[in-house]
Amino acid sequence: MTDYTRLDEKELRKELDQLNEIYDQIKSQNLKLDMSRGKPCSEQLALSVDMLKYPDPTDNFITSDGVDARNYGLVDGIAEAKELFAEILEVDSKNIIVGNNSSLSMMYDTIARAMQFGLYGSKTPWSKLPKVKFLCPSPGYDRHFAITELFGFEMIVVDMLKDGPDMEKVEKLVAEDPFIKGIWCIPKYSNPTGITFSDEVVDALAKMKTAAEDFRIFWDNAYVVHHLTDTPDRLKNLLSACYEAGNPDRALIFTSTSKITFPGAGIACMAASENNIAHTKKLTGFRTIGPDKMNQLRHVRFLKNAKGVEEHMKKHARILKPKFDQVFNILSAQLKDKNIAEWTEPKGGYFISFNTMPGCAKAVVKMAAEAGVVFTPAGATFPYGKDPLDRNIRIAPTLPPINELKTAMELFCICVRIVSIKKLLGELN
Amino acid sequence: MTDYTRLDEKELRKELDQLNEIYDQIKSQNLKLDMSRGKPCSEQLALSVDMLKYPDPTDNFITSDGVDARNYGLVDGIAEAKELFAEILEVDSKNIIVGNNSSLSMMYDTIARAMQFGLYGSKTPWSKLPKVKFLCPSPGYDRHFAITELFGFEMIVVDMLKDGPDMEKVEKLVAEDPFIKGIWCIPKYSNPTGITFSDEVVDALAKMKTAAEDFRIFWDNAYVVHHLTDTPDRLKNLLSACYEAGNPDRALIFTSTSKITFPGAGIACMAASENNIAHTKKLTGFRTIGPDKMNQLRHVRFLKNAKGVEEHMKKHARILKPKFDQVFNILSAQLKDKNIAEWTEPKGGYFISFNTMPGCAKAVVKMAAEAGVVFTPAGATFPYGKDPLDRNIRIAPTLPPINELKTAMELFCICVRIVSIKKLLGELN
Repeated sequence: MTDYTRLDEKELRKELDQLNEIYDQIKSQNLKLDMSRGKPCSEQLALSVDMLKYPDPTDNFITSDGVDARNYGLVDGIAEAKELFAEILEVDSKNIIVGNNSSLSMMYDTIARAMQFGLYGSKTPWSKLPKVKFLCPSPGYDRHFAITELFGFEMIVVDMLKDGPDMEKVEKLVAEDPFIKGIWCIPKYSNPTGITFSDEVVDALAKMKTAAEDFRIFWDNAYVVHHLTDTPDRLKNLLSACYEAGNPDRALIFTSTSKITFPGAGIACMAASENNIAHTKKLTGFRTIGPDKMNQLRHVRFLKNAKGVEEHMKKHARILKPKFDQVFNILSAQLKDKNIAEWTEPKGGYFISFNTMPGCAKAVVKMAAEAGVVFTPAGATFPYGKDPLDRNIRIAPTLPPINELKTAMELFCICVRIVSIKKLLGELN
Repeated sequence: MTDYTRLDEKELRKELDQLNEIYDQIKSQNLKLDMSRGKPCSEQLALSVDMLKYPDPTDNFITSDGVDARNYGLVDGIAEAKELFAEILEVDSKNIIVGNNSSLSMMYDTIARAMQFGLYGSKTPWSKLPKVKFLCPSPGYDRHFAITELFGFEMIVVDMLKDGPDMEKVEKLVAEDPFIKGIWCIPKYSNPTGITFSDEVVDALAKMKTAAEDFRIFWDNAYVVHHLTDTPDRLKNLLSACYEAGNPDRALIFTSTSKITFPGAGIACMAASENNIAHTKKLTGFRTIGPDKMNQLRHVRFLKNAKGVEEHMKKHARILKPKFDQVFNILSAQLKDKNIAEWTEPKGGYFISFNTMPGCAKAVVKMAAEAGVVFTPAGATFPYGKDPLDRNIRIAPTLPPINELKTAMELFCICVRIVSIKKLLGELN
């Protein structure tokens, strides 16, 4: 292992020549690999096909609300599905609305309603304000940023630290600026850094003074049960913390079964204060007579309860852990102690966050693409697609088969090394 | 049969006494019947339980797009589902977006996007205009009117005639007023009148000059295949008519399988010009990664094609026709030639529209409710819930078992007769 930053020009050039040779060899294989998407792989999809047996034609289809799940009704979902999510999120089922197949839609719809009508407690619909701003801890999730960009919000980058957003900065900003209406958070096994917010960060978010009367924490708890190890991270309950801090309406918690059962054919929910739930339920009633209750019943019949979900997630972990481990091993073997990169080793979720030396990320992704391996575009993890230091790359190890993953990651490391040397030589455009 | 309007006071009072006696007898039975909702009955729901066998665990789940329906993707739906709806709506599948379980949601979302961003061809997002107005042919569907009321649109009542909206009035209004941005239509077996728009009306809607550059016809073709007889109504294709008239972007056509398979667990679609589809698809991509493709596959595996849907709808008709006939028979037996009411006898759909003498509808619904039979609130079929003549009542015969339907309709007719006599006597408050 060699610290590249301590090599002289001659040593660097020698290393570069060797690496270029390897790169050309790999390039000549005409690879076509995709490392860009946080998608489950086929083996994971197969884990849930037995769910399709439910509800079977001999089912009575009557929910515990006493409603026929085959007919209209229940705009906020069936009682059994509320209870399942309540158990997973450690809240009361009266704090839950169960929707259709997408938690992203529930977030989008919440923001669309905030713009048009205001949220519970809003003095003014957000669209009537001179501007709306959102805090975007970064690196973060591009689809979050895309929504707030679409609605024309000013997005303010806040650094994502090892235990959550930089709370000193967050507290200062929200206390001063009434146009800052919300913050995006993926609090557990965060996308892409993999970190889990500390209890102190959760408490600080719940307690902080906000200039906006209707400030909301968009708490995308997408990976709540998506552990890779037997010693999972623990996340403090934001809704309870907000109730305790006297700010019960601040928390909007979202999750789904997209990466538990089927992406796109799962069920999603929002958990929030009773005021938020009542307000959302009322407005949702104009949009739909109700969500797909049959799919909710299907999920409950199959997963049963939080214990059932936990057992099911262990099966996912058995498939995913070796993939993550392989990425960690290759990164470590090729890049450790070279002083040109750092990366996270999350205990759950779908991503590994990788930082190059400043100014190298775009070049690495481009070089990998030219050899046939697609990574998430550099910059995608920041608002407006602009990583100010051009260093963050999101690695998504779940979809490719393990042999492809090996090839892709070996190429990736070669690219990182080549680009870093060029950077050190002052030869990177 | 007696024309009530030709009876003298003494004769009316004698009739009233007899009717009051019957009413009191019925009231003493403590009925609890619901005639208010356009919901399928249990026998209808049972027709589709075999759909739950699809896709079965041994399916390959690969759509004809080559995509695994269990995983993320295809924001506009799977090719097979597009083809099914294309066949039903007689359009090309490139003109289709298949969504989740609710066509109402797709209409709501279209209006929400129009407000926030504008539609294809809009010069200005609707929310930035001093006002937005919508034409509301009435009687019509309360959930349509509820959406446009929620968004603060001014709703302009246009009379619903026997072959569609009063086009003379429609043409005049849309030509003059650039703030009139749309019209609600249920063009086939309309809710509640049961009429189907004539070819002339469809052509006139397609051709008319509109002051608004982005005028839209919200064409809720909810009952497109919902025939009750072997001589179904034919509806001219609005999208083709709009293309022919040089106004291709004017038509937004919606339908769903809610009353084909399961209400709430069906699949919905929008059909429109390629410009509208591209614009909608792009914005929908911010809201969701895709609809529930598994439920789309489930529907296609079960219904197969338009022919399969037609066969399936015949089974519904066999259940519903006797219910509609019973309502027609009771209305005719009790009210024909009394000169106090008129009603429609639709060849499809879910409703019968009933007009009392002016000023009587609220009183009839109230009286029926006091004897334990709930009808849709009088006025609900008009914008703001206000029927200017207080005469329209929507009768929904599908949900109750046939014996309950008989009791409910007999009571209804008694109430109509009592209220009409009071009206003729000048004794109705």
